[in-house]
Amino acid sequence: MMLHFQVFLSAIYSSGSERHLKYIPKIFNMEIFGCFALTEVSHGSNSKAIRTTAHYDPTTEEFIIHSPDFEAAKFLIGNMGKTATHAVVFAQLYTPGGQCHGLHPFVVQIRDPKTLLPVPGVMVGDVGRKLGQNGLDNGFTMFHKVRIPRQDLLNRTGDVTPEGTYVTPFKVPCLQVSQGPVPARKRSATGARLAGADCSRFGFQCHQQGRGHLGQPHLQGPGLTTCWPTAARRPPLACTTPTSPTRLVREAAPLRAAPHCGFKGERLLVSHPQIGVTGFSGDWGSLSPQQWRLLPYLAAAYALDHFAKSLFLDLMGLQQGLLKNDRSARQVRGGSLFPAALLLFQPRGFVAVNRLGDLRDNNDPNCTYEGDNNVLLQQTSNYLLGLLAPGGPGGAHFQSPLKSVAFLEAYPALLGQRFQVASLEDCLDSSVPLAAYEWLVCYLLRESYQKLNQEKRSGSDDFTARNNCQVYYCRSLALAFLELTVVRRFHEHTHQPSVPPPLRAVLQRLSALYGLWSLSQHTALLYQGGYFTGEQAGKIVESAILALCSQLKDDAVALVDVIAPPDFVMDSPIGKADGELYKNIWTTILQESKVLERASWWPEFSVNKPVIGGLRSKL
Amino acid sequence: MMLHFQVFLSAIYSSGSERHLKYIPKIFNMEIFGCFALTEVSHGSNSKAIRTTAHYDPTTEEFIIHSPDFEAAKFLIGNMGKTATHAVVFAQLYTPGGQCHGLHPFVVQIRDPKTLLPVPGVMVGDVGRKLGQNGLDNGFTMFHKVRIPRQDLLNRTGDVTPEGTYVTPFKVPCLQVSQGPVPARKRSATGARLAGADCSRFGFQCHQQGRGHLGQPHLQGPGLTTCWPTAARRPPLACTTPTSPTRLVREAAPLRAAPHCGFKGERLLVSHPQIGVTGFSGDWGSLSPQQWRLLPYLAAAYALDHFAKSLFLDLMGLQQGLLKNDRSARQVRGGSLFPAALLLFQPRGFVAVNRLGDLRDNNDPNCTYEGDNNVLLQQTSNYLLGLLAPGGPGGAHFQSPLKSVAFLEAYPALLGQRFQVASLEDCLDSSVPLAAYEWLVCYLLRESYQKLNQEKRSGSDDFTARNNCQVYYCRSLALAFLELTVVRRFHEHTHQPSVPPPLRAVLQRLSALYGLWSLSQHTALLYQGGYFTGEQAGKIVESAILALCSQLKDDAVALVDVIAPPDFVMDSPIGKADGELYKNIWTTILQESKVLERASWWPEFSVNKPVIGGLRSKL
Repeated sequence: MMLHFQVFLSAIYSSGSERHLKYIPKIFNMEIFGCFALTEVSHGSNSKAIRTTAHYDPTTEEFIIHSPDFEAAKFLIGNMGKTATHAVVFAQLYTPGGQCHGLHPFVVQIRDPKTLLPVPGVMVGDVGRKLGQNGLDNGFTMFHKVRIPRQDLLNRTGDVTPEGTYVTPFKVPCLQVSQGPVPARKRSATGARLAGADCSRFGFQCHQQGRGHLGQPHLQGPGLTTCWPTAARRPPLACTTPTSPTRLVREAAPLRAAPHCGFKGERLLVSHPQIGVTGFSGDWGSLSPQQWRLLPYLAAAYALDHFAKSLFLDLMGLQQGLLKNDRSARQVRGGSLFPAALLLFQPRGFVAVNRLGDLRDNNDPNCTYEGDNNVLLQQTSNYLLGLLAPGGPGGAHFQSPLKSVAFLEAYPALLGQRFQVASLEDCLDSSVPLAAYEWLVCYLLRESYQKLNQEKRSGSDDFTARNNCQVYYCRSLALAFLELTVVRRFHEHTHQPSVPPPLRAVLQRLSALYGLWSLSQHTALLYQGGYFTGEQAGKIVESAILALCSQLKDDAVALVDVIAPPDFVMDSPIGKADGELYKNIWTTILQESKVLERASWWPEFSVNKPVIGGLRSKL
Repeated sequence: MMLHFQVFLSAIYSSGSERHLKYIPKIFNMEIFGCFALTEVSHGSNSKAIRTTAHYDPTTEEFIIHSPDFEAAKFLIGNMGKTATHAVVFAQLYTPGGQCHGLHPFVVQIRDPKTLLPVPGVMVGDVGRKLGQNGLDNGFTMFHKVRIPRQDLLNRTGDVTPEGTYVTPFKVPCLQVSQGPVPARKRSATGARLAGADCSRFGFQCHQQGRGHLGQPHLQGPGLTTCWPTAARRPPLACTTPTSPTRLVREAAPLRAAPHCGFKGERLLVSHPQIGVTGFSGDWGSLSPQQWRLLPYLAAAYALDHFAKSLFLDLMGLQQGLLKNDRSARQVRGGSLFPAALLLFQPRGFVAVNRLGDLRDNNDPNCTYEGDNNVLLQQTSNYLLGLLAPGGPGGAHFQSPLKSVAFLEAYPALLGQRFQVASLEDCLDSSVPLAAYEWLVCYLLRESYQKLNQEKRSGSDDFTARNNCQVYYCRSLALAFLELTVVRRFHEHTHQPSVPPPLRAVLQRLSALYGLWSLSQHTALLYQGGYFTGEQAGKIVESAILALCSQLKDDAVALVDVIAPPDFVMDSPIGKADGELYKNIWTTILQESKVLERASWWPEFSVNKPVIGGLRSKL
């Protein structure tokens, strides 16, 4: 639905013109169903390498869409597999003289809306089962000289006259693509919430049986009490679309009062067949490894969810600016954050990035389609390195409308900062990891810049030089910058005055836990660059993470319920809101197809066994 | 097959006696088919919590096997789902007076071998589709008062007389379990090889098209050359069962001569539907990020494969000792490494560990079944901490027949070691990470020991104290110890004099790459504890990793071919030995079921769309 209503629609709207407005109502009432056909079997990210062609025939005023061979087939296009009737097809535009004007988008019908059969000349199919996202029918298409009206060229950046002359307002062709990855990013954040809720609920299950445990021979009888007394029997939260976390935490507050029993639970190991999770449960309160394994992800789900929503709102703001044809620098630079932001949520196969037109004079890729995390990361680090380059954006050096690089105004002075926290108690707020991240980004920025210059001085061209700087330098820089941005946004969100006082503590703990846990993957760099010195620095951060897990455990159940969707959406026997782990597992198992029946091939296993060597020729 | 021939058979053989020998021929010629029924729905790891019962009835000289409720059903038992006719069932043994003598194994028939129907009183089924290992039918069983002959108690550790008196040679009941995890470990190492070969081959594909790349507007024409000229057209290696890597590297040597073209490839992004890998290809030789993403895993596949094989041989040696009833200390301590070793390969649901009887006087868990990595890790760290404890094994303090802890004789002096490598060139041998790991294990041993004592002094009982030491301390200690052992074994293997000179360089590079790459996840600790000081230490290790990747790239194709199974086993279109990535993908897609057909529900999407609100009641 998102691909149709957002990606397809905005491709037509932003790349088309008035003559394409007729498609809009058909999109809204689903008379047609669209997809975004850019990537091909052997090319995805490099727009110049796309090989579908669109030759203009002035005698009929048509474009002829054609796939020269199977490697140029459109591939992995969502919605195309079974349902799309139309596609925005990206093809190399040729005018009658044989000149290629680069990649352009076209509206091409691929199926009859009444019968869903392919139109003549179109071979369209489904790529089949994927590792994930199997609710989406990703398809492929080969075009064999499919003719479309001239007007179905989406002509915002270039057009062809009826006689066959190419015209464009731009000096260099520049493609605008729709915002596929932003909704995809939200989808990934949703995925994080689903997974976080599912695994957390599984981990919260408690099964007690006296004090049996590894190695101690005591057995104090098989009394059975769940440590989820009232909560286990409550109905699921009656919210279908979660609103702000703060509102829902408030609603879930009564659940937090459910007492936790103080028994020492046994160590219980359960492997669940459907999802393959192996977790152990016990006294939820006392098992810090268990808390450590689950709670940081819960905190991450909150932080990333907030980030996704806030970035989406920023994008909407930019869109509004676009609609008003506001081409100010603000718009332009605001657009630079998005490729970066997409990295945290890059889904497979998603290729579009929104770049607004004015950056074509510098070296950055202006019109690029990415399908790979690493390419987006490189875009991000290129952007950051560009801020340091001599002759960079000058007086507006570190301004960014989303303020994502404002902190760099203190570069390189920031490099002199040092980790000043001396006690655990001073390490329990997200301002600590935030400051560390600012130092870290500056450090990696300097290191990457030096490394890049070193590579160039050794004679490498720009392409090779940048490649050789990705690992440990530019890539790490981009990742750290993104994490910093997420940490900052959640820190500001949880510390703003409007947060209701009863919620402030738990939200700030989540923020601190996420920030420290995320930061701790960079401890080596913090030591390497001198921000950390001595043994205590690393240990304080570790202790703070464990302490925050312990502080959050009593709110964990309610926090999960806030973000968890209803059971039927979660669709997991171990993640049900009622907490009845074993009953739900047992019921699910017994509902499976032919669970108690013999396999169809049972005779070959008993009375009709194949004879060894029986397949060999008897000659 | 492994579950039947190794786990089931050795359970009967090692836990049974002469009266059970009759089962052995039936196992070998597959008149019966067995499984290992230990875990239950709600209990896996704690043997004392297993709830299946076996009550002895002296009037009929039978045991009555019974599952009190569904939570006690045997669960996730491999082979049980569709095919097993017999099970080694672990149940709590009760003599007629009502006294429980703990967990014992019994041979229980669950299906009629001729019909594969369940025997009366047995409800047996399949748990259904799992996240992985779907070639194995994991099942569940509930026993309703199933009677078995007295003699079908596997009576090596305890027996019941016909009159109903329990007798045992041991003071405290101790269970011996078969070696399920060792074959499972091999299976995991095989999985690593399969995955490594598959992804590596995919990453090696090269598609060139002039010099298109991100952002540079050059387009030098669509000349198409693969960078896998001769290799792409060679037949797959005709080896069905890979033997020693050294032998096969020799056989594959001619392939290494295939020249690599020097073109700058384009950046190509492909997402493959079946496995969901997103990789990019280009000039394999110049893209260090690509090398960095793949080659360490290739090195790991070699190192882990060697480790699995060498450990298996050690286990066989111990087995031989067992068969000769050799209960020397050597045997006992040798057994202690295995729980530790299993951790690197812990598959889901696998529960058995071999512990030999003499350790029951100390605090370590003697007879424990684990299904969870963390429990095995804790066993390992308990073992290591036990070496430090006052009144530990005394004069034989650091002896271990597999020599896995011999280096600890230099504890605590080892803690004074420092990273001495000053240049990249001196960092390219696995002796460097080996020395660092020895320091690291000593450091974590000291830290864990101090942390544990601190926890105990604060009043925690042993269970809680150990729990609170797992994260960042004991768990990290165990992991580091295991990694050290793998690194050491591969280092010794690749540096022994018998390695053929032409192979020495490449094998030692693999060893160095694996060691450094594995070590680099602990850089933070190396700084924290003072082994690393200053910026250069971390950077030298990183540079060495990249340098080794670059040195190994020319051998990469051949190295993959050595470990890759034949194509039909790999069963992956992107991992085929001929290297024809796109053709294989295209062919596979087109073979899928109903790939070009409409979905069965197509009318609901076109002419028969559901009306919004149409499901609401019309009342």
